[in-house]
Amino acid sequence: MTITLKPEVLTRERFAPFGDVIETGGDHKASMNDGRFERFDDLGAVDLKGGKGAIGIVRCRVATRLPYRIDKVERHPLGSQAFIPLSKHRMIIVVAPPEESVEAADLRAFVTNGRQGINYRRGTWHMPLISFEEGQEFLVVDRATEAPNCDEHSFDDDVMLVDE
Amino acid sequence: MTITLKPEVLTRERFAPFGDVIETGGDHKASMNDGRFERFDDLGAVDLKGGKGAIGIVRCRVATRLPYRIDKVERHPLGSQAFIPLSKHRMIIVVAPPEESVEAADLRAFVTNGRQGINYRRGTWHMPLISFEEGQEFLVVDRATEAPNCDEHSFDDDVMLVDE
Repeated sequence: MTITLKPEVLTRERFAPFGDVIETGGDHKASMNDGRFERFDDLGAVDLKGGKGAIGIVRCRVATRLPYRIDKVERHPLGSQAFIPLSKHRMIIVVAPPEESVEAADLRAFVTNGRQGINYRRGTWHMPLISFEEGQEFLVVDRATEAPNCDEHSFDDDVMLVDE
Repeated sequence: MTITLKPEVLTRERFAPFGDVIETGGDHKASMNDGRFERFDDLGAVDLKGGKGAIGIVRCRVATRLPYRIDKVERHPLGSQAFIPLSKHRMIIVVAPPEESVEAADLRAFVTNGRQGINYRRGTWHMPLISFEEGQEFLVVDRATEAPNCDEHSFDDDVMLVDE
């Protein structure tokens, strides 16, 4: 069977079952440093089950073109994982709820506005990161890798990610 | 007494006593997602003493001009704190080692290349964030704020931060 996934616009409400949208705006705004900055706090929850956290950068070497066949998804049972673009870049992400098993019918695709980052809740199934531009960099906040922390699931169905 | 601080170029080696420089390059490079990405792992250690971590964004409302008088520094005894510019932006940071006390003579200033982010080690004394452009945004990775986690120290000396 072929399943076609067309991305929806990413909003906090829609993404809530899967994790956090890292963007300014909303309720968390406060002033800091004698009014020189606005702060938007707690946009993403770093949940590492007591493990150590790490900040990294990933850089696209091979750009992805749509339509794109999603052959597998993965999840990190021991920690949340955030990706934030380090310059304006539209992201398309594909997720399924953090349940024990996953089927192609569970998948949802979202497209960001170019500024938004995302934070996958611990255990959320997700398509491995893709990017549309070689050289594009993303900041990553996740668990420092010691224990095995990645489950994969491959689909029998043909899951095709198409443009908005 | 007046102390003049002129920033040095930020490098990992120079910054090691104070924390991490978050930048690509170096030894941590690996391939991921079937070669579509390069990853630079563990650029910054998220050290929260078992507390919960949070990802936030801060946005400059009032740009700072140099020379700038540093009237105080602060430290966070319960966690590391990272700032990463969300678009290219030169940062000047001022730090002192994570000791119990701090004096103006302990301060060192660093200037980034515009891409670099920094991660203050837990307890590192630092000048509260400044930015040179209104609207500039920085990603923040630190401890979710429950317990008091900020000590301040004010200087009797006039500490003036000047341009490179």
